[in-house]
Amino acid sequence: MKDAMDIPTYQDMLDAHERIKPHIRRTPIRTSDYLNELAGAQLFFKCENFQEPGAFKVRGAANAVFGLSDEQAARGVATHSSGNHASCLSYAAMLRGIPCNVVMPRTAPQAKKDTVRRYGGVITECEPSTSSREATFAEVQARTGGDFVHPYNDPRVIAGQGTCANELIEQVDGLDAVVAPIGGGGMISGTCLTLSTLAPEVKVIAAEPEQADDAYRSFKAGHIIADDAPKTVADGLLVPLKDLTWHFVKNHVSEIYTASDAEIVDAMKLIWKHLRIVMEPSSAVPLATILKNPEAFAGQRVGIIVTGGNVDLDKLPWI
Amino acid sequence: MKDAMDIPTYQDMLDAHERIKPHIRRTPIRTSDYLNELAGAQLFFKCENFQEPGAFKVRGAANAVFGLSDEQAARGVATHSSGNHASCLSYAAMLRGIPCNVVMPRTAPQAKKDTVRRYGGVITECEPSTSSREATFAEVQARTGGDFVHPYNDPRVIAGQGTCANELIEQVDGLDAVVAPIGGGGMISGTCLTLSTLAPEVKVIAAEPEQADDAYRSFKAGHIIADDAPKTVADGLLVPLKDLTWHFVKNHVSEIYTASDAEIVDAMKLIWKHLRIVMEPSSAVPLATILKNPEAFAGQRVGIIVTGGNVDLDKLPWI
Repeated sequence: MKDAMDIPTYQDMLDAHERIKPHIRRTPIRTSDYLNELAGAQLFFKCENFQEPGAFKVRGAANAVFGLSDEQAARGVATHSSGNHASCLSYAAMLRGIPCNVVMPRTAPQAKKDTVRRYGGVITECEPSTSSREATFAEVQARTGGDFVHPYNDPRVIAGQGTCANELIEQVDGLDAVVAPIGGGGMISGTCLTLSTLAPEVKVIAAEPEQADDAYRSFKAGHIIADDAPKTVADGLLVPLKDLTWHFVKNHVSEIYTASDAEIVDAMKLIWKHLRIVMEPSSAVPLATILKNPEAFAGQRVGIIVTGGNVDLDKLPWI
Repeated sequence: MKDAMDIPTYQDMLDAHERIKPHIRRTPIRTSDYLNELAGAQLFFKCENFQEPGAFKVRGAANAVFGLSDEQAARGVATHSSGNHASCLSYAAMLRGIPCNVVMPRTAPQAKKDTVRRYGGVITECEPSTSSREATFAEVQARTGGDFVHPYNDPRVIAGQGTCANELIEQVDGLDAVVAPIGGGGMISGTCLTLSTLAPEVKVIAAEPEQADDAYRSFKAGHIIADDAPKTVADGLLVPLKDLTWHFVKNHVSEIYTASDAEIVDAMKLIWKHLRIVMEPSSAVPLATILKNPEAFAGQRVGIIVTGGNVDLDKLPWI
């Protein structure tokens, strides 16, 4: 457990933004008259899939990497992840020229391993079980002295993710709500961190796959509930909330909506067709929930975080 | 044959830009460090696929539609096309609230017909032959009095397409070259029109599929050569040059490069993967030719027109 002192502040987010600005992109907003008509709302898609490594996670990763002392930086960073956090942390470490060690199940897709290695990350494979991952990670960390950067339950990471909403508020006036997908809750927490101070009138709404709805059930129950091995097409959203992200979800999220895998795939295809951007199934969950709950968004101005664009182009979920 | 008076001027392009600005998007530039490294050049992709109807052709179409007198506008516009020109002209006519009649082969894909109808275009089907198309179009035009807007051999259309390069030069400093696909030559002609006055030091380079290389052969021969029923994955580039577009190609294009269908599909997938945008095979021809001729672009700053993003997501050419 982190203690209460670890909760990042608005100033931490502002400091993070200054720190990472040279290393990330100020991503553009995309809109589609057609999707607006379909939703009965004005939708503003913040294209984090356009970050160089293809996901918002470069914000938190860069904040952690560029915030290290030179002494710590020399020993590098380490994490366990088979998703965008691993490649984004490798990318940020490459930009600073420091080592990045990643523990990844040997069963992880080859494309994910290739991306981490392209950015200079060093992969140590483990068995696809929690015990193997933990033991392997402990060994790697002891050997390298790398600073552990958790994919989301880390105040530096949350402060970094909050810089996305900081840009969004500069780019779009008069938003009524921001909708982002929720997995471990890093992006939602960063969004809450920023908006609760900068624009408290803007609702923060989380969107989750029905088939991995632990955040929804936690939100309704008032305490963290973890799923047992959830399966959904939105494979970036399988991980559970942790204490830091639960803090933000509990205190600042207005609502969590869920959508089925079929609805997520339909929304993904709509976005590819009408916004003409490549994004992951996870990033389609917000639109799926908006189309499913039109009364909740009717006539509103809604920001949507397009969280990532790393997808296997040979295996699209509608084909 | 048009007479020489019909060649659009730089002032026509500036007038077109003022006229269409409220109706089109100033599309963003996308870059990828990875693609730059691969090409050995700095590539700046101008995302015309992000126009609301998904193609640069909305520029020329909007210039024609919004330049009509009220009297002519009441009778609307007409064209024959089964591609982006048909949907973009319908879209522009919808914005002005005037009729748009489109003659289209009955064999055209249902999705193309659906898009034209979504924008209020009225389709008259013909047989898939030149004689049937011409007879049907003559009948439709006589009946409706609609103003004929040719997909590219029209000075209003070329002036409209030239507004894309006008934005690009504002958005990217110090370009050495601009590369655009060539089919009938509307975009290339507009690019030549703009750059020959605004930035004559910037080379204009055309990129063409090997399997529909009539512009390349015309360029080398010094007169228009038309292909007989070419077939290529880049299905937006099948049509031949006409007198107005030949004028610009002959006088202002520095070079025409070609690429095979396999090279085009590889480049398309690279762009989808690393720029994370959805674009047509035709729009991948520039990158395919750049990767094929690295010595011609080494170390240069190169603008690339991403011409369109309307693609059948159920039938991707690499699957």
